[in-house]
Amino acid sequence: MRYILDQDHMPTAWFNVLPVMPEPLQPPLHPETREPIGPDALAPLFPMGLILQEVSAEPWIDIPGEVLDVLRLWRPTPLVRAERLERSLGTPARIYFKDESLSPAGSHKPNTAVAQAFYNRQEGVARLSTETGAGQWGSALAFACRQFELECKVFMVRASYGQKPYRRVLMETWGADVVPSPVDDPDHPGSLGLAISDAVRDAASRDDTHYSLGSVLNHVLLHQTIIGLEAKEQLALAGEAQPDVVVGCCGGGSNLAGLALPFVPNDGVRLVAAEPSSCPTLTEGRFDYDFGDTAGLTPLLAMYTLGHDFVPPPIHAGGLRYHGDAPIISSLVRSGRMDAVAYPQGKTFEAAIQFANTEGKIPAPETGHAIRAVIDEALAAKELGEERVILFNFSGHGLLDLSAYDDYLHGRLLD
Amino acid sequence: MRYILDQDHMPTAWFNVLPVMPEPLQPPLHPETREPIGPDALAPLFPMGLILQEVSAEPWIDIPGEVLDVLRLWRPTPLVRAERLERSLGTPARIYFKDESLSPAGSHKPNTAVAQAFYNRQEGVARLSTETGAGQWGSALAFACRQFELECKVFMVRASYGQKPYRRVLMETWGADVVPSPVDDPDHPGSLGLAISDAVRDAASRDDTHYSLGSVLNHVLLHQTIIGLEAKEQLALAGEAQPDVVVGCCGGGSNLAGLALPFVPNDGVRLVAAEPSSCPTLTEGRFDYDFGDTAGLTPLLAMYTLGHDFVPPPIHAGGLRYHGDAPIISSLVRSGRMDAVAYPQGKTFEAAIQFANTEGKIPAPETGHAIRAVIDEALAAKELGEERVILFNFSGHGLLDLSAYDDYLHGRLLD
Repeated sequence: MRYILDQDHMPTAWFNVLPVMPEPLQPPLHPETREPIGPDALAPLFPMGLILQEVSAEPWIDIPGEVLDVLRLWRPTPLVRAERLERSLGTPARIYFKDESLSPAGSHKPNTAVAQAFYNRQEGVARLSTETGAGQWGSALAFACRQFELECKVFMVRASYGQKPYRRVLMETWGADVVPSPVDDPDHPGSLGLAISDAVRDAASRDDTHYSLGSVLNHVLLHQTIIGLEAKEQLALAGEAQPDVVVGCCGGGSNLAGLALPFVPNDGVRLVAAEPSSCPTLTEGRFDYDFGDTAGLTPLLAMYTLGHDFVPPPIHAGGLRYHGDAPIISSLVRSGRMDAVAYPQGKTFEAAIQFANTEGKIPAPETGHAIRAVIDEALAAKELGEERVILFNFSGHGLLDLSAYDDYLHGRLLD
Repeated sequence: MRYILDQDHMPTAWFNVLPVMPEPLQPPLHPETREPIGPDALAPLFPMGLILQEVSAEPWIDIPGEVLDVLRLWRPTPLVRAERLERSLGTPARIYFKDESLSPAGSHKPNTAVAQAFYNRQEGVARLSTETGAGQWGSALAFACRQFELECKVFMVRASYGQKPYRRVLMETWGADVVPSPVDDPDHPGSLGLAISDAVRDAASRDDTHYSLGSVLNHVLLHQTIIGLEAKEQLALAGEAQPDVVVGCCGGGSNLAGLALPFVPNDGVRLVAAEPSSCPTLTEGRFDYDFGDTAGLTPLLAMYTLGHDFVPPPIHAGGLRYHGDAPIISSLVRSGRMDAVAYPQGKTFEAAIQFANTEGKIPAPETGHAIRAVIDEALAAKELGEERVILFNFSGHGLLDLSAYDDYLHGRLLD
């Protein structure tokens, strides 16, 4: 059963979690002085509209009409009850998911890409630069820039540029200029940290260009809250008072936050982050100030981190291979409001295929982590004979990640 | 704007066009005797439930509840008004499309795959065999077989098996056994005609196995009419009395038929088939009895054909590379109820990219043919200052065809 919201009932304001955080966030620090930084320090890279959202204390922030117009190309997304998965598990739990795979780019990423393109356009910026690993974020921003007639420059990790051409082509189809990174060393396979450095340098060196980031920062997570706000209305349509547990996979934290943050004030709703055991930031990292990139160009953020020089192994869930986590997510975990679990990738593909064989859709490898946690919750509910209501974010499809399924199905996957 | 039907308002019967055809269909003939064949002759390959649908004179045929249950995983599909495309064309035409790309397999094909798997299962068949070119049909049947716990054997054209591994992996993820065809010559690149022969031989040689076809036959087109039936209800929601023109791309004819057949009785609704100029069956073929496959194993069908030994050039829209056309579509064209147009593939990719840059979604190369026709209709309406209502079938997404976009964007596409 799918629960559909009418387009006239789409949320028109984002939910700002900052005023209701259990513990206040620690401010970002200047990378050199280690003093708290003000809005002006970010102005060369971001438009003021986004910088103000980064620190806003308002509980709700209006979504501009032009952003809503683009989001309506695929939103509201359906809330789906996964009855066939429930049946195959024999669980009394009721499992619901938000289907964020229906966006043009195939994931939740365009929710913020569209907003970021809009605010930049509004302030007269003509061009955005960004980095991308396997291409999920780069393709979302390419799509958004095309809608607002901005140029888009994407620095793509060189190894992915060569091995995963489909997302590169997707970006080019939407008009983006995609180059392999690092730009100054054609023999280097690249990394996300180095690509961030390339993109920041590009933006800092040109008056017409700003930089755009797809996760981690407060304003990015804010734009994603439309997912959880829709889910709340749709759960009511399904006759559910509230979920017992809300699950999302977690790399930088934006898809998890998008679904979970609107539930932070709801007592009795457990929030769960599912991450890879090969990049166990929340479950094994330390809480500390650290850089967002490898080269140390970004402000220092208070977050769980494995160290900005940590290089995660090459697992297929590229979107979860990040040394840090969003400060908001990190603070929620530290204060005990959110739990975190970690899984080896083999267990996540097993769960993803169980989902594909019951509900039909092929999950992104990242989303497989959330599904693993959901199946374990549902089996625990079965064990206890509990009617648990489980809500998770189907953050993206895996149609451009089928080589990973190929590896799993033919025994070539490393844990 | 997207017009969404409630799941409770999904059609519960298919529309059978046979009783309202302008001219009666000519019967299929036995491949050797050239005498009209009866239902019994088809029984080794198909279940009686489908054979009876092939010749039914009932105006409506109930959709079984178990089929509806699976279709509800993604149906009803939205009817979308393509306002951003309209604006970029500056046309007074109103353009609507049915989004059939939202199925698990990414096209309209599962609409019939699910029904075929159900009827076979109901009659005790344990295993289905079929052929596939690039893999659209094979992946739809693999998904459907998994839902009804049938084994699925897919003979995939060897050239695609090697060059387009993603759809092969998709089929395997849903549990299908996929082998390259022809099976008896590992050095042969294969063809659709040869793969049909492999699949038919496999089904004929095993008691537990039937054969399944993804287009051309009457019962296949019948199952697709749910598309047009939903569209009629959704156009009413949009305040449109009826479309002026209905467009679909046409290879075997199933996606076009699915949208267009319910409009056959509607006076004033023009029906248009868009095909590749490199495989111009309707626009340049002859109307005659011909085989459905290269080897001449199938019954003879009365249809437009380029000859069963015609080998279309290797254009990217693999689903349109068929020497014949569905007898229903052929008869509608012959009687003047349906028009046909043909385009070179470069013009279809130009249209597909114009669509991607306005509406966001990446069309399948096949769907690009429909979009080319739609844009030309919209520009003609602009020329005449007419408020034309155009409806088309967005039959599939192009996420597994991005190498074709790569060729187009980098000037490597041949017309």
